[in-house]
Amino acid sequence: MSQVAPITLYMSKGGTNGWKTAIVLEELGLQYHPIYLDLYKGEQKEPEHTKYNPNGRIPTLIDHGNNDFVVWESNAIITYLVDKYDPEGKLSMKTLEDKTTQLQWLMFQASGQGPYFGQALWFLRQHSEKIPSAIERYQKEVLRIFGVLESVLAKQEWLVGGKCTVADLSFIPWNVTAVDGPIMRGYEGFNFAQDFPSVHK
Amino acid sequence: MSQVAPITLYMSKGGTNGWKTAIVLEELGLQYHPIYLDLYKGEQKEPEHTKYNPNGRIPTLIDHGNNDFVVWESNAIITYLVDKYDPEGKLSMKTLEDKTTQLQWLMFQASGQGPYFGQALWFLRQHSEKIPSAIERYQKEVLRIFGVLESVLAKQEWLVGGKCTVADLSFIPWNVTAVDGPIMRGYEGFNFAQDFPSVHK
Repeated sequence: MSQVAPITLYMSKGGTNGWKTAIVLEELGLQYHPIYLDLYKGEQKEPEHTKYNPNGRIPTLIDHGNNDFVVWESNAIITYLVDKYDPEGKLSMKTLEDKTTQLQWLMFQASGQGPYFGQALWFLRQHSEKIPSAIERYQKEVLRIFGVLESVLAKQEWLVGGKCTVADLSFIPWNVTAVDGPIMRGYEGFNFAQDFPSVHK
Repeated sequence: MSQVAPITLYMSKGGTNGWKTAIVLEELGLQYHPIYLDLYKGEQKEPEHTKYNPNGRIPTLIDHGNNDFVVWESNAIITYLVDKYDPEGKLSMKTLEDKTTQLQWLMFQASGQGPYFGQALWFLRQHSEKIPSAIERYQKEVLRIFGVLESVLAKQEWLVGGKCTVADLSFIPWNVTAVDGPIMRGYEGFNFAQDFPSVHK
């Protein structure tokens, strides 16, 4: 593969996690070459990709400027990018305590928002049968997670350090997907801007 | 609250994530005072806990030796502990690249293993109705995740840096819960030691 940019990013045109990584690359002004995998064809599970990422999911980043260093898991990727390429803290925190709080929110995004929003979408769109009690379980969890974010953002504008960091950015793709996409569409009584004004902002 | 130890850890007697954090505290020889919350009574959602952790889930750590610094999300906690209290790298990596790979596996644990193993347990034990197709979905995902770990650990003893780190330790509680508990009990043809020998070891 000829290297057209110092960074290669395996992503997909639809997935939230590739988009999240691309946002941070763009914000940091880093040049990268995106390789779009077709998730419906299963290209992410092909050896060409799994030789870099044994999990067979996108995104995966290769940093050709750093001995072809490979990293996968979107929140590990964006943490690497700011640790290496954001020394002035444009999008990230630098003291141990602030970095820990930033990581805490990234972990909450990875373990709380991503999987549960994803399960809501799965049972709405892809599961073999319609199971209202499963759909309800995950839609309620979406509301719970919006509530956690709202309880914090009602008191402060950003999740950590009084500025926009990768912690805030990491929640955007799934929030947009949930609010503007099918997850919460038609959910009775759901009004994002009214119920969660600080998250909305 | 009188401080009987320099660290307070909110955890539960049953949950995997509190246990994970306690393992790392023990391994680093740090003194801590565990406060066991009764999850069935919902004590983790009471103000006494949520004033520290707006997510209302355990574990939550308070480091009295560091200005009562508060951190929640188990993998953020254990990363904080090794970054602050493991300068010699007994359980952790120290270069940017190795720390990134360690974080990558912690993110995979947080986003892949934890939520999906947890959903398997939910649909087996707690969901309002028995849904075989949902149980099957998550049991298959457990097998997929064991497969990812096996593909890597068949070639190397540890996930990163040629030694046991917090990345390896983070997978233990849910692996034990899945193999010895109800998640995979009775799953036809499942033989952990035979199918996933390297993870088993």
